Amino acid sequence: MGKPRIVIVGAGFGGLSAAKALAGVPADVVLVDRSNHHLFQPLLYQVATAGLAPTQIATPIRSILADQANVRALLGEVTGVDLAAKEVQLGARRLGYDQLILATGASHSYFGHEEWAPSAPGLKNLDDALELRRRILLAFERAELETDEAARARLLTFVVIGAGPTGVEMAGAIAELARRALARDFRAIRGHMAKVVLIEAGPRVLPAFPEPLSLYAKRALEGLGVTVRVGESVTDCRHHGVALENEVIPAATVIWAAGVMASPAATWLQTATDRAGRAVVAPDLSVPGHPEVFVIGDTAHVDAGGTPLPGVAPVAKQQGAYVASAIAARLSGRTAPPPFRYRSSGALATIGRKAAVVDMAGLQLKGPLAWLLWSVAHIWFLIGFRNRLAVTLDWTWAYLTFERGARLITGCTRDPGLCDTSAASRRRAAE
Amino acid sequence: MGKPRIVIVGAGFGGLSAAKALAGVPADVVLVDRSNHHLFQPLLYQVATAGLAPTQIATPIRSILADQANVRALLGEVTGVDLAAKEVQLGARRLGYDQLILATGASHSYFGHEEWAPSAPGLKNLDDALELRRRILLAFERAELETDEAARARLLTFVVIGAGPTGVEMAGAIAELARRALARDFRAIRGHMAKVVLIEAGPRVLPAFPEPLSLYAKRALEGLGVTVRVGESVTDCRHHGVALENEVIPAATVIWAAGVMASPAATWLQTATDRAGRAVVAPDLSVPGHPEVFVIGDTAHVDAGGTPLPGVAPVAKQQGAYVASAIAARLSGRTAPPPFRYRSSGALATIGRKAAVVDMAGLQLKGPLAWLLWSVAHIWFLIGFRNRLAVTLDWTWAYLTFERGARLITGCTRDPGLCDTSAASRRRAAE
Repeated sequence: MGKPRIVIVGAGFGGLSAAKALAGVPADVVLVDRSNHHLFQPLLYQVATAGLAPTQIATPIRSILADQANVRALLGEVTGVDLAAKEVQLGARRLGYDQLILATGASHSYFGHEEWAPSAPGLKNLDDALELRRRILLAFERAELETDEAARARLLTFVVIGAGPTGVEMAGAIAELARRALARDFRAIRGHMAKVVLIEAGPRVLPAFPEPLSLYAKRALEGLGVTVRVGESVTDCRHHGVALENEVIPAATVIWAAGVMASPAATWLQTATDRAGRAVVAPDLSVPGHPEVFVIGDTAHVDAGGTPLPGVAPVAKQQGAYVASAIAARLSGRTAPPPFRYRSSGALATIGRKAAVVDMAGLQLKGPLAWLLWSVAHIWFLIGFRNRLAVTLDWTWAYLTFERGARLITGCTRDPGLCDTSAASRRRAAE
Repeated sequence: MGKPRIVIVGAGFGGLSAAKALAGVPADVVLVDRSNHHLFQPLLYQVATAGLAPTQIATPIRSILADQANVRALLGEVTGVDLAAKEVQLGARRLGYDQLILATGASHSYFGHEEWAPSAPGLKNLDDALELRRRILLAFERAELETDEAARARLLTFVVIGAGPTGVEMAGAIAELARRALARDFRAIRGHMAKVVLIEAGPRVLPAFPEPLSLYAKRALEGLGVTVRVGESVTDCRHHGVALENEVIPAATVIWAAGVMASPAATWLQTATDRAGRAVVAPDLSVPGHPEVFVIGDTAHVDAGGTPLPGVAPVAKQQGAYVASAIAARLSGRTAPPPFRYRSSGALATIGRKAAVVDMAGLQLKGPLAWLLWSVAHIWFLIGFRNRLAVTLDWTWAYLTFERGARLITGCTRDPGLCDTSAASRRRAAE
């Protein structure tokens, strides 16, 4: 009889933490992901705004796990789970499991308006970030060529929808990019011509933070030149701008940071979900009726005193380690650990290059000290010494010079007379 | 009367060198390029083999020229030249000039077999390099999943067509990637399973180098495990491999490094060309009959004692500086400089991480010393202190650890069950 096989789907913070915690467990661990790299999502907005390069926030999964002999990494996209046969489906291929951990994350939700996605892309993976980077940088290039004033104003208007941490960070980073890094490079456009608008349907920015920190974040954004509009609902964003209840904001670049929807793992399992599509799990994070199947991270709904745990990296990491210990106990015949309990490590968000808010262990911090804490924490958690060093150097350099090293426009555009499309069309023909 | 306008098309080595040499000249200089970055092409093969990230060999044109007040950078694709009206055409837009410098480079030539392009892509820009990186890395991922032995052997066979410097460098880098960097990361495949084949129609590798260096390069490649086949012509490369006269080599990844074709600048000008499509220019690099139009770099045919000057960076750079001085003399009424003469700075090529060949000023070098010289020269010429530092750190790290930091697979693939295609299709819908 062979060793039991543990299949983990998803190599985000949850799946990777589970895989690492299973080191030394006498089992064959298979980690499946549809991309070949683990992504440090909290810094994805930096790639989208040309502050960091993709390699600086992504590490090949294989190299993270190269020295862990009982894990095998597989590149593949899971399309379903056969609970009866205990098999994971990858298109036509099947992969049997004894224990299964689903850590498949979340994607954007347009609240029933999926048709908005092309004009207001979100930010979940490297491709999203590179697409946003291309749109933002191309808007400046087009504005430099534009002679009509209204058209230029539209090109230089950037609307961010949703004022959670991602929305706040994107708005702040675009404002800085426009006012400082790009200002000296262009001849026809000036930094102050750019307009960044942050729209939030709720009553304040960073709704998950204490009210004083929300207020501080709003003022810090306004100090960077961002127009913050709270209590406003978007009614459309398909036609050359963003429509609110009583107004249309003409804008060439719209970024969606409003809604999140769990991956379809719960539908594969045909188990109960909450409104965001997250699977409602048992206290040990297993699926009711299927103790061999666990759901963790952004895909799981875990109640914490009336509200579900937030979809953040520390929750996913702790759940991954917990599930690994539960499986290890089970395989060795030890008693199961007590139900999962989240030890909060606080919340952080940054606004540009001087300000941040930190809500941690009863402590509320804001300003430069919070920014320093935010920087240290993020660099520390970036996987691998090498990335840490590279990011530190890059940020130090960017801080001192206002330069943006990753300001490349690559890939295809559809504007005749603007950029090369031949490589893209050649590639498309190849596929 | 306004200042005269000098339009430069192309921000490669030639165009950029001309723009910089025009600093201080009383003229409005407009530098048009279809991408927003200057690319250090000699290191493009490192991006294709995951040794360097795109940001490390590309710099935004605007930031290179930010401090030069008389230059304006324009993102746009030139589609023609109206010699009578003295206008450059960018799709429907037009841009007038008094002096024109065409430095539009070269692309691949498939010797009349353009239908080979999708299955054997070449390496000219960042999109090409990222496409090759994706293909090479995906071949390993697919091989890891493959159970059929012949299919796996095909996935692990990499054929490089053409043994000039690019072909030799690609073959060496893929061999090292397979044998060292990837070997410890995979479970089912081992480094020695990978097969790299370098095919050259001529009698020896690096035909532009002295024969002893060619021989050394061949041995160094074979030492890395590359199969070198000289005097063999490719008859087809569309069907799952490369067909030679009497044999078919099954291979999933084929790389074209054989032929080069000049950009269509000469057809815009309706002037005489050589067989590679390069415009035959006057001794001062102007177009016969049009003293106000210059052609430089890979697009120009300049005779140097019976053979044309090679399409390498030093030629383009010296020509850019020469044309700038000719225009400056003309604008200030000084006498024209003597005809252009190329001062050769030698030729270099590297084979993996220990060997290189250098042919410089009568000196022939090979081995580790040549490699060191090659590294120093390339890092030195990379634009900008920051990139120099980053590349130095990266290479030192890679040399010490055999790691490859840029090993990311991004963008779209067409293999069901392998990788995410949703971001790509969403993006496509957006365009």
